[in-house]
Amino acid sequence: MTAETNLSVEPPRPLRRTVESDWFRNFIMGLIIANAVILGILTYRTLLDGFVQVLRVVDMAITWVFVTEILLKMIVYRLGFFRSGWNWFDFLVVGISLIPGGQAFSVMRALRVLRVLRLLHIVPMMKQVTEALIRALPGMGAILALLALITYVAAVMATNLFGDTETEEVAQLFSDLPRSALSLFQVMTMDGWRFEVVQKVVDDGHPYAWVFFLIFIFVASFLVLNLFIALIVEALQVEQEAMQEEQIEALEEEAEEAHAERAEILTVLKELKQEIAALKATRDGK
Amino acid sequence: MTAETNLSVEPPRPLRRTVESDWFRNFIMGLIIANAVILGILTYRTLLDGFVQVLRVVDMAITWVFVTEILLKMIVYRLGFFRSGWNWFDFLVVGISLIPGGQAFSVMRALRVLRVLRLLHIVPMMKQVTEALIRALPGMGAILALLALITYVAAVMATNLFGDTETEEVAQLFSDLPRSALSLFQVMTMDGWRFEVVQKVVDDGHPYAWVFFLIFIFVASFLVLNLFIALIVEALQVEQEAMQEEQIEALEEEAEEAHAERAEILTVLKELKQEIAALKATRDGK
Amino acid sequence: MTAETNLSVEPPRPLRRTVESDWFRNFIMGLIIANAVILGILTYRTLLDGFVQVLRVVDMAITWVFVTEILLKMIVYRLGFFRSGWNWFDFLVVGISLIPGGQAFSVMRALRVLRVLRLLHIVPMMKQVTEALIRALPGMGAILALLALITYVAAVMATNLFGDTETEEVAQLFSDLPRSALSLFQVMTMDGWRFEVVQKVVDDGHPYAWVFFLIFIFVASFLVLNLFIALIVEALQVEQEAMQEEQIEALEEEAEEAHAERAEILTVLKELKQEIAALKATRDGK
Amino acid sequence: MTAETNLSVEPPRPLRRTVESDWFRNFIMGLIIANAVILGILTYRTLLDGFVQVLRVVDMAITWVFVTEILLKMIVYRLGFFRSGWNWFDFLVVGISLIPGGQAFSVMRALRVLRVLRLLHIVPMMKQVTEALIRALPGMGAILALLALITYVAAVMATNLFGDTETEEVAQLFSDLPRSALSLFQVMTMDGWRFEVVQKVVDDGHPYAWVFFLIFIFVASFLVLNLFIALIVEALQVEQEAMQEEQIEALEEEAEEAHAERAEILTVLKELKQEIAALKATRDGK
Repeated sequence: MTAETNLSVEPPRPLRRTVESDWFRNFIMGLIIANAVILGILTYRTLLDGFVQVLRVVDMAITWVFVTEILLKMIVYRLGFFRSGWNWFDFLVVGISLIPGGQAFSVMRALRVLRVLRLLHIVPMMKQVTEALIRALPGMGAILALLALITYVAAVMATNLFGDTETEEVAQLFSDLPRSALSLFQVMTMDGWRFEVVQKVVDDGHPYAWVFFLIFIFVASFLVLNLFIALIVEALQVEQEAMQEEQIEALEEEAEEAHAERAEILTVLKELKQEIAALKATRDGK
Repeated sequence: MTAETNLSVEPPRPLRRTVESDWFRNFIMGLIIANAVILGILTYRTLLDGFVQVLRVVDMAITWVFVTEILLKMIVYRLGFFRSGWNWFDFLVVGISLIPGGQAFSVMRALRVLRVLRLLHIVPMMKQVTEALIRALPGMGAILALLALITYVAAVMATNLFGDTETEEVAQLFSDLPRSALSLFQVMTMDGWRFEVVQKVVDDGHPYAWVFFLIFIFVASFLVLNLFIALIVEALQVEQEAMQEEQIEALEEEAEEAHAERAEILTVLKELKQEIAALKATRDGK
Repeated sequence: MTAETNLSVEPPRPLRRTVESDWFRNFIMGLIIANAVILGILTYRTLLDGFVQVLRVVDMAITWVFVTEILLKMIVYRLGFFRSGWNWFDFLVVGISLIPGGQAFSVMRALRVLRVLRLLHIVPMMKQVTEALIRALPGMGAILALLALITYVAAVMATNLFGDTETEEVAQLFSDLPRSALSLFQVMTMDGWRFEVVQKVVDDGHPYAWVFFLIFIFVASFLVLNLFIALIVEALQVEQEAMQEEQIEALEEEAEEAHAERAEILTVLKELKQEIAALKATRDGK
Repeated sequence: MTAETNLSVEPPRPLRRTVESDWFRNFIMGLIIANAVILGILTYRTLLDGFVQVLRVVDMAITWVFVTEILLKMIVYRLGFFRSGWNWFDFLVVGISLIPGGQAFSVMRALRVLRVLRLLHIVPMMKQVTEALIRALPGMGAILALLALITYVAAVMATNLFGDTETEEVAQLFSDLPRSALSLFQVMTMDGWRFEVVQKVVDDGHPYAWVFFLIFIFVASFLVLNLFIALIVEALQVEQEAMQEEQIEALEEEAEEAHAERAEILTVLKELKQEIAALKATRDGK
């Protein structure tokens, strides 16, 4: 994510300086915040048509400034541009706004708001936190995979066991795989698990269904708990290793000093020995 | 918060001693507790009118004692009074009770209860904990800002996507920005997220709305988790650094002692060398 | 809790040996478990009357064994008996079963089940964990007090603001102080806070009530979080201090050894010095 | 779980090499994943009969490959096969699919999906995490036992106190022991505790029932919290002990080096002493 560097053969120096300057970044930051406010105001359905028109024009203008910004960066960094994850992010969230259908479909229009998330890496403090959070993700990988596997297996079982029903409410919960997975995720979050899920299934002719759900709750909670613990342990580890290093360094420094002093003692001692040897020699030689 | 000190030019000594004395603090503490009880009793609507009248008078009397207390502190500390956050707090929560409209508007009347929170800094044990908690707040800043940004973006998206509806129930959830933010906060707390929010939106003609909400739940939970971890790590860090220091101190102490002993050895050795040199000299000189 | 010791003037030795023996403890443990099973079976309302009668008799018999056990312990330890918290516990939970009205009132009958909790200190592993948990309680004191204070203040405010209503549902939530406190505790546990509490109050003519509840949720969650962190930090501290001690001990041991060795060097060196001095003396004396 | 080793008297070498080879494991892994997908597709009720038939045949074929795999392992490892927990797991989950009634009963059919969980130990990364999680289980034992005991006692009390009712809704919650236990578990997860459980019991003529439930919530939450803390402390302990060891090792290494150097000094010193003694001797002897 810090690959915005020196590969490009001949970067136009003044342009580069502009793109990397603080005032340029602050200018873009200001535009993003203004954009966020405008997109917020535009959600109100009772605005005057003229005002909406003005806001739409300003929004489009800001979008084009963002496009220009990204083009400038591409000119400056050439292919190096795409070696930064954040540049890809900017490229995609700004690019979405330019898709022609973007005006027509509500989903596309909604996705334009993602532009505001550019603040995540334009504000330095936020960038730091966001990158720390992203670095924590791989540590969750193995347990998340386990959780996904167990939810999949439980969803297949639940669909087989409870899905073949004529009760509308239970069908909504377990009639196909995605619904079962969503219902199991609901049970995992412990939101209305008893009366919105378990009791409905029990009343639908599965008096022992609660055994299945209790096992699932225990296993899933245990995994989520361990996910949490893994993150804590990792966060603490980084810090403790730094401390560990500092302490071992202090120990080694002390050891080195002691070694030097003992070496000096030994040197003096050996000189002494030589002197005595010399003394003896003169004496014997006498 | 400990700025209640020696700036005031000529503090009337006996007054100051009174204001800072333990019995004065305990007296105020007792009044606050009595006040808390009275305000609690006054919430009952079935009390005799006469009794309510008496309680109101006592409440007012206590309020005026508090006013006097604050005035005394102002006289003693002069401008130094406003350098303590807790004094500002007292000034505001007691001040609210004196606003004339305070009798008329239920909100103002309710805010008078905040006076009881003065216990937070009058009871020493509570003051200690409260200040520790306040010091922990800045460590949450960056992640809370992230959470607020993501909730804002998601609220704008949700209002755009789901707000334009004729279903009363969905309109209540997502028809404008504050409602969307509140609904997303509800989803974040995982309270009734499935059937009170997601299912209603799905049934309102957005069959894939659950994708949006699942992503939001995952991102928000991950952030809340990290908020929590940041606080744990910080709390442990303070302690571990103290331990680290203690250990390095022990090491250094030991090193110093060893150094002194080695220095002594070296001194004796050098004396020895001189003696032998002298021995040799006398001998050669002989 | 380990005060079951040597104060009693003349303890009847063989009795004491019996009471403190493993087989006696195991016998009582077995009776408690049997009692637990019987009390569980007695909850079923479809049992034959004769069977119920038998179980009741066995239950009474077991109770009298427990009474005998406690009397024996009182004889053995005399007043020392009451210096153990666990003995008080046994005395109370067994005593409850003997209250005559205990047969008549369902609450008294239900409290008899508490006898089963004697397992908490009769099974050694459970005793260990239970006592560790009890030791962790004081560490929560200050923050729990804070939480109670804030809930009280918020309950008084909520009763004043929302309690004076004609809507049955809102009256049930906030019409008096205990109800308000319970409702706020519900909000704190985030169980149905939006639609079972906040929305009902908003619909009852308090459009900005959600501000009050959001602030309460944030403050309460922050306190609960810190309660949790305080417990973690304390649990880790105990352990780290043990490690710290071990490490400093290792350092000191090493330092002592080094000191002894350096002392030996110095001794040899001083002998050497004396010898040379002697050498010189003989020489000069010569 | 790593007992798949060298006990069998005469293992057919090439067979063993095959069974333990990477390609064999990857082949089985691929089959499990294919099987998982097939079982997922088979949950859809709208598939063409012919397609379902094909999938069933493939499913059976894969099952027989698994049976063959397990038989091969039994031939290779003989009795050593059953010393691995994972082999038992494979044996059971594959065995279930072969029970004749397995075709008839939906529960048996659903249990076949458990075969997919074989991935837990066939994918190396997952095996590592799963085994770490299993190792964490005993650390939870004591507190889980406490939680179970307290839930049992509370369930007996709740059945006695609230179970004898004519209200259908309350009967569903507390009319017998398993229902009471499930309802208390629901209260413990804080899912709808207020209006789905407590309020119903209060309205059924037990105005102070909330006291019972509040105490239960506090005790259970405190235990769950400590369960969590025990896991965190244990996870951190493992790591810190490793660090501790490393640090003490560094200290000892340093100490050893210092000892060697001091020994050298002492040796030289003693030689010196001898030389001086010799010097003196020659002199005196002269």
